[in-house]
This record gives sequence, C-alpha cells and structure tokens, in this order.
Amino acid sequence: MSLEKEIVEKVKASFAKQLFMDTLGAKLTLVEKGKVKITCAYQKGLSQQNGFFHAGVLTSIVDSACGYAALTMMPKEADVLSVEFKINLLRPAVSNKIVAVGTVFKAGKTLFVCDGLVMDAKEEKVFAKMTATMFVSRK
Amino acid sequence: MSLEKEIVEKVKASFAKQLFMDTLGAKLTLVEKGKVKITCAYQKGLSQQNGFFHAGVLTSIVDSACGYAALTMMPKEADVLSVEFKINLLRPAVSNKIVAVGTVFKAGKTLFVCDGLVMDAKEEKVFAKMTATMFVSRK
Amino acid sequence: MSLEKEIVEKVKASFAKQLFMDTLGAKLTLVEKGKVKITCAYQKGLSQQNGFFHAGVLTSIVDSACGYAALTMMPKEADVLSVEFKINLLRPAVSNKIVAVGTVFKAGKTLFVCDGLVMDAKEEKVFAKMTATMFVSRK
Amino acid sequence: MSLEKEIVEKVKASFAKQLFMDTLGAKLTLVEKGKVKITCAYQKGLSQQNGFFHAGVLTSIVDSACGYAALTMMPKEADVLSVEFKINLLRPAVSNKIVAVGTVFKAGKTLFVCDGLVMDAKEEKVFAKMTATMFVSRK
Repeated sequence: MSLEKEIVEKVKASFAKQLFMDTLGAKLTLVEKGKVKITCAYQKGLSQQNGFFHAGVLTSIVDSACGYAALTMMPKEADVLSVEFKINLLRPAVSNKIVAVGTVFKAGKTLFVCDGLVMDAKEEKVFAKMTATMFVSRK
Repeated sequence: MSLEKEIVEKVKASFAKQLFMDTLGAKLTLVEKGKVKITCAYQKGLSQQNGFFHAGVLTSIVDSACGYAALTMMPKEADVLSVEFKINLLRPAVSNKIVAVGTVFKAGKTLFVCDGLVMDAKEEKVFAKMTATMFVSRK
Repeated sequence: MSLEKEIVEKVKASFAKQLFMDTLGAKLTLVEKGKVKITCAYQKGLSQQNGFFHAGVLTSIVDSACGYAALTMMPKEADVLSVEFKINLLRPAVSNKIVAVGTVFKAGKTLFVCDGLVMDAKEEKVFAKMTATMFVSRK
Repeated sequence: MSLEKEIVEKVKASFAKQLFMDTLGAKLTLVEKGKVKITCAYQKGLSQQNGFFHAGVLTSIVDSACGYAALTMMPKEADVLSVEFKINLLRPAVSNKIVAVGTVFKAGKTLFVCDGLVMDAKEEKVFAKMTATMFVSRK
C-alpha cells in the first residue's frame, strides 16, 4: 500500500469510529495531504431555534475536518487531539448541505495549526471560519 | 407572570426549538439570571474515535448554555446569536454524563461575553472551557 | 478628494494618533481597500526573554493592521474598535523587521471579521496568525 | 533557597530580560504559585487613537502575566512559550494604571491553560479577559 493510500485509510478508519459523525449524517468526502472535507446534509434534527443548522453542527464537522487534515501530515503511529479552537460564525447557515474544509496551516512536531471553513454546498458562501490547534498524540 | 418566570419560559421555549439538542439527548437543567446549565448523557452515537464524548458535543451544549445565559439578561424582545467562541479541550471527556454551565461575564448593549465550562456529572472535573461572544439580535 | 484618497487619509490620521505605534517604531506601509500593512524594525526594547520580538509587539501591530483594514470598508463617519481576537504564535519571531498584514474576511453592518498575519521582512515566513472581530463604532 | 523563592527568582530574572516590559514601563508586582500580576502606568506613548491604553499594551502585559503564572508551576529547567491566546476587549481602558492578572487554570505536562484579566488600578473594572495556551519548553 502506498504511503498516501495508507494515510487515507487511517483517516477513513478513524472517521468511521467517530460515531458522532454518523449521528450527524456527516460524510468524509475528501482526504488529501493537509486537506480534508466533511459534508453534512440538512435534517430538522440538526437545527437551532430558527430552523438553520446549529452552530454546534458546523463546529463539530469542521473540528473533525481540521483534525483529520492534521492527521494526514502526522507520523504514522500518531493520533490527533484537538487542543483548542476558535470559530467565527459569519451568517446563518441556511443551506440544504454544508461542507467543512480543514487545511493544515502549520505542521509542527508537537502542535499543528489548521484553518477551517464551513460553506454551502457550492462552496461559495462561508458560514463559519475556524482556527484550530491540534496535538500530535504518540502512544 | 413574573419577569423572572417569563425569562425562564422564553429560554425553555427557544431550547425546545433547538431540535439539535434533542438529537444529542441534551436537557436544560437550570435557568437563572445570567446562568444556564445543560446536561447530556453518554451514548455511543456521541463519541469520537476513542469512544469518549466528541469535542463537538461538548462545544454544542456549552455554546447553547452560554447563549441562553446571555438571553436571560437581554431585552424581552431580543434573540441571541453566537458571534464567535473559543474553546480549550483540557482532557478527554470520559464520563457517563456531561454538564455544561454558561455564565454571563459582561452584558453589553450589543454584545455579551460569556464563560462556559463543561464538566463531569459531579461538576468536579473540567473537560472544556469556553469564552463566547454573543450578539443581541433585535427584530 | 476621491473616496479612496479620503479613506487612506482617515486611516493615516488615526494611525498617527495611536502614539503606541510610534513607541514601537511601527510604520503604516500600505492602505488599500480591505488590506493594511504595518511594519516594525527590531530594537532590543521590543524583546522577550530570549531576545526575539515579544508576542505583544506582534499582536499590537497586527491588531492595528486588522482594525485599519476594517476601517477602510466602514462608513465614512465610523470608527473601529477591537471586540476580540485570537492569535497563534507559530515560531519565534527572529527577524530584523516584522510585517503585519490585516485583511477583511467578512464585512458586516455591525461586525467585521479580519485575518492577520505577522511575517518576516520578505513576507515568506509566518510568525503569527490572527483572527479578529472588529466593531463598527458610530458616534 | 526554598523552592518557592527559587521560582520567584526565576520569574523575576526572566521578566527582567523581557526588555519590552521595560519599554512599556510594566512592573512585576506579584509572583505566587500559579498567579502573577503585572502593572503598567498610563503614558501617552501607550495610547490608541482616542487616548486610551492601546489593546496591544493590555495584551502584552496579560500575555506575560499568564506566561509567568504558568512558569511558576513548570519544572525548574523549563521555559514558557505562548502557543496562542484569545482576548476579549470589554470596554475602553480608561485608567491611570492597569493591572494584569494571570492565573493557571489547567497545568499539563506539555501545555498549560491560563486565565488573564486586565483591570483598573483598584482591580474593580475589567477591561479585558484572556484565555492563553502555554507550552512547556524543555531544553
């Protein structure tokens, strides 16, 4: 198995174990070196008081996207943990599907800094913007 | 209806409309002036890759707790919107139940700043710590 | 005076009143619609315990750069106030000059979200990365 | 020299090497286990466009206060580095003196989370509130 394929499998396997992603109906749609996308279709059960996607849904999928983007660039044996993140919610997430994109901004030995965006299905409108710090967890 | 009761009802009604809270199995357990608690029992469907509560679950309930804490101190006709928040994840959330507490730190005319904590059922161990900026949305 | 020139003058006049920028030896080197650069040459008096630029210096100039980037897109009569910001310090700022670039990410009626970077003189190495929320202050 | 005295000396020695603190006229006024205070008297050279303390000054001293609070609880041989912080600016810092208080919220093996406040001279009014992540740097 090529190194790249191995990494993709590692991310897919970890994502499959995040049962919360399944509860959200979230799908892993892209795994590249330093970049991961997760999408989530609208359901009433994901809404806040005005019927739009709850900020917590946006945050959950973009946190996972940032974490897995980091994982693609970590040593094979490492796992990823979120240290902290900050998210700005820019406008109500009115959309039938949301797309979270996580990208690695800085890869360090112990810490990674990632950028996250949550957008509409066409990836034109940005609903939220995250900066996340990830920890390289070695067993 | 006393002013206080009216506020409690307003928060309860809004919480009931956040269908995502129901998806998480989250319950509103305290509504006081400037302070709100939301709890969430563990289910496999809320887990991350190691079987603990997903950071997104912690974030979702403490964002709502902060928002509703702010709403208790906003004008009657206002609604609350999350502008942004930052959360530090301090340790794996290994617990059969988590409790999110949101408290108002600064109440302004347009913006509120709130503190959030996510703890274990006994409220002894802190799993996560949030600072959130909330917007006073007037129709 | 063209609208653009008027905005540039407004930013320059405000920058000149920020006497702290003078204490840091900071210079306003670019003012465009939605983008502002501020540079600062190294002096011993700006250092932390290892002799590098203090994180506070980086933060001060990139906060001002973000604020003025926002001001270029605000109504003529408005002033800008920093609501909050988050900054990740990526590596020691070892450089004879630092360059802070602030750009508007989202321009709203009441709030702006800006991106900030602090780089070396060649703008190749990134020392710090900021996300800032700015308030449109109307008299 | 008692352990405590040794720690106080270590913090004082590091603070003295932060020449930027001297440029700001900042003084280290308290060093306890997990808690540090730094004060700064108003001078025109520390002001923003309206004559108040620049947000960068508040940030600089409270970042140092948080860092040194962490350092008091780190192993003897370790140094402290700011990983990232978020600060909310709650009101204009109109005061003849500001006091920054940094306290350790969570002490970890690799990372510390600290709370910071910047207040007026009487420590009654809060101007700014920080959450900072600090790194335990081992040579």
